[in-house]
Amino acid sequence: TLLQILNELHYADIAEIINELNLEEATYLIKLLDSEKTSDTLTELDDDVRERILKNLSAQEIADELLELDTDDAADIIAELSEERKKEVISHIEDKEHAKDIVELLRYDENSAGGLMAKELVKVNENWNVLTCVKEMRLQAEHVTRVHSIYVVDDDEKLKGRLSLKDLLTTSTKTHIRDVYIPKVDYVIVNDKAEDVARVMSKYDLEAIPVVDESGRLVGRITIDDIVDVIREEAEKDYQLAAGITQDVEADDNVWKLTKARLPWLLIGMFGGLGAASIIEGFETAMEKYVVLLIFVPLIQSTAGNVGIQSSAIVVQGLANGTIKGKIFHRLLKEFVLGLINAIGISSIVFLISHFGFHTPYLISVTICVALITVIINAALIGTFIPIFLDKRGMDPAVSTGPFITTSNDILGVFIYFLIAKLILGF
Amino acid sequence: TLLQILNELHYADIAEIINELNLEEATYLIKLLDSEKTSDTLTELDDDVRERILKNLSAQEIADELLELDTDDAADIIAELSEERKKEVISHIEDKEHAKDIVELLRYDENSAGGLMAKELVKVNENWNVLTCVKEMRLQAEHVTRVHSIYVVDDDEKLKGRLSLKDLLTTSTKTHIRDVYIPKVDYVIVNDKAEDVARVMSKYDLEAIPVVDESGRLVGRITIDDIVDVIREEAEKDYQLAAGITQDVEADDNVWKLTKARLPWLLIGMFGGLGAASIIEGFETAMEKYVVLLIFVPLIQSTAGNVGIQSSAIVVQGLANGTIKGKIFHRLLKEFVLGLINAIGISSIVFLISHFGFHTPYLISVTICVALITVIINAALIGTFIPIFLDKRGMDPAVSTGPFITTSNDILGVFIYFLIAKLILGF
Ligand SMILES: [Mg+2]
Ligand SMILES: [Mg+2]
Ligand SMILES: [Mg+2]
Ligand SMILES: [Mg+2]
Ligand SMILES: [Mg+2]
Ligand SMILES: [Mg+2]
Ligand SMILES: [Mg+2]
Ligand SMILES: [Mg+2]
Ligand SMILES: [Mg+2]
Ligand SMILES: [Mg+2]
Ligand SMILES: [Mg+2]
Ligand SMILES: [Mg+2]
Ligand SMILES: [Mg+2]
Repeated sequence: TLLQILNELHYADIAEIINELNLEEATYLIKLLDSEKTSDTLTELDDDVRERILKNLSAQEIADELLELDTDDAADIIAELSEERKKEVISHIEDKEHAKDIVELLRYDENSAGGLMAKELVKVNENWNVLTCVKEMRLQAEHVTRVHSIYVVDDDEKLKGRLSLKDLLTTSTKTHIRDVYIPKVDYVIVNDKAEDVARVMSKYDLEAIPVVDESGRLVGRITIDDIVDVIREEAEKDYQLAAGITQDVEADDNVWKLTKARLPWLLIGMFGGLGAASIIEGFETAMEKYVVLLIFVPLIQSTAGNVGIQSSAIVVQGLANGTIKGKIFHRLLKEFVLGLINAIGISSIVFLISHFGFHTPYLISVTICVALITVIINAALIGTFIPIFLDKRGMDPAVSTGPFITTSNDILGVFIYFLIAKLILGF
Repeated sequence: TLLQILNELHYADIAEIINELNLEEATYLIKLLDSEKTSDTLTELDDDVRERILKNLSAQEIADELLELDTDDAADIIAELSEERKKEVISHIEDKEHAKDIVELLRYDENSAGGLMAKELVKVNENWNVLTCVKEMRLQAEHVTRVHSIYVVDDDEKLKGRLSLKDLLTTSTKTHIRDVYIPKVDYVIVNDKAEDVARVMSKYDLEAIPVVDESGRLVGRITIDDIVDVIREEAEKDYQLAAGITQDVEADDNVWKLTKARLPWLLIGMFGGLGAASIIEGFETAMEKYVVLLIFVPLIQSTAGNVGIQSSAIVVQGLANGTIKGKIFHRLLKEFVLGLINAIGISSIVFLISHFGFHTPYLISVTICVALITVIINAALIGTFIPIFLDKRGMDPAVSTGPFITTSNDILGVFIYFLIAKLILGF
């Protein structure tokens, strides 16, 4: 039967199927599934699909599903509900301990360590002996799918270290934990940014990491599967920004959603193009006396755009993987040198081709080259400065590769071109 | 002392330090470290730094380091050596079993499951009883840092399923494995692409996955830490392509390396710009009679570029996360509809602004709009088709967001513009 087939499938596969169904079918399937499968499936659904399905479930039904989930996933689902519904659902959660944990997790920003952690973990007190420890661990481990590490805390719940299962099994039952634990343990702080947690876990190849609060108390644990999602989502977001897609969309989304994601950049690009047009029109005399200047506008414009996005992209990646250190000034100086080298190379070729290939007069070729050099260096500096500036302000530096900035760069390039032409040719 | 400080540090941190040193200092440090730390540090170094350091080590020294590494990391390091050096190093590896495993791994493409897997894993025969099993597992587990799962094979080494540690511990020692194992197990095939392995492991939240050959024999195991690296590297590569950086570089690389990575796109962009210039020049009469057409070239060009890169980026992401299914034709039709909607929206605005704002004559405004619509739809279709085509040919679809294709799109846009102007205005 359908139910049997579904229950054989992995919940991630069921979620993929449900994502494609209409609301009625989706709700039907969700209610048909075993309760444990339902809750897992809910966590894997597309946000918009889940939102609509949850509207069709009562607070009690949602609360029952949450009971089956780890606290991190439960908190993520509740977070999407309206304030009122949130309270209602929480009041229906039978296990009060679980409810309390979920409420605690709701406090944290979703892009922080607190937003990623679960309350499920195995911890032992340094003052216990091995026997007590093993007993307590058995109880705790019931709620934890994968143990990974046993964390050691003191009487104040402060994280002291970790325990190797092997040491635990080979030590006499009366030994105190404080005499056998490993005091060296990687951890993150509850307000650390998700991206920083990802960097630490991938650098040190960790499968789980404990989270402590500002005073060092162990408050949760983050597992690598959730970090893999963070890494993927971050990468998709940056990529979409660089490609001019302003909303999180997928190829299989509907035309309307795709249009909403793509039209904004096209509109900004359009106003950019019209802006460039009015700049060109503004230099009326140039158009009359030096029409030939106009045929090199695409060259100037695309060079400005390309240099700007390259510079920004390198900074964005550098900030993301921690290879950008030191002063802004040093970084800008490096870009200046880099821009100058590229600019001289490119403008030499352009000079030769425009002068001998297009037979543009000497002074116009010079104009084009001086403009190119200025535009390249300018775009490199702006492209470097903006993401660093955004980052310092606590904003996402990847925005600098987005439509608004790149288009501004394009227009500015055209403006600089005609300004330099005016200076050199004196019209 | 320095040595004490270094040995306190994690090898990933030591590698970061060594990446910044000159060759002499780097070799000095590498030789100073404990042997186990040395080998781990080697795996984390930048490729170019490692290459230079390995040149300073004898075949025997390299072989000794490899002995301390898991087979996957050892194979990755050997793979970078010259054919001759490879043989020499392998012949110096003391543990012949280890050497054989490494040689086997060298056979596989680095971007395949085989290129990612290690030979270290814990496997038991379905015909053993629990007692034998536990004994054998103890031996095997010595070589395996993290056990994750116990795989069950038959006499032909074919993967049959997995074993839960809990079941093993709670079953009588005489029970046969075949009566207790879990026959359901996720696996990948040795020639599967790395990206596909990443998709499976992240979808099902796996920390390790067994790898089988074409006939179903268990040949290795992939762990999530290496998949995290795959995901990051893939994302960086795609991002750099979309931003016009043609080589793997980081912000802290030297100016020369950065120039090599960035100049190619700028050169392609330059030739694109010059190409556009010669197309415009080719429509001489247009320049004489309708100079006003020229001021809208930036608009046409940037719109073509933007639409093309958006369409490609969505396909590239869809191919990467598996949301693109079905026929090319259906996909192109969707893009056509999408392009048409965007095109009509944008060209209506452009018509109004160019006609009433710029006071361009009616027929020229019509020309601009018809050209815009054509250019948008054309760019959308090309942008969709190329990555799908590349993917079918086994090439990386992300190349479609790279310099060559986007620049071609720019130029083609300008050409279409003047062609349509010629048709409508009849010069
Ligand atoms: Mg959360
Ligand atoms: Mg790593
Ligand atoms: Mg590693
Ligand atoms: Mg989780
Ligand atoms: Mg980011
Ligand atoms: Mg979807
Ligand atoms: Mg562009
Ligand atoms: Mg490999
Ligand atoms: Mg996952
Ligand atoms: Mg998950
Ligand atoms: Mg490995
Ligand atoms: Mg790719
Ligand atoms: Mg580097």
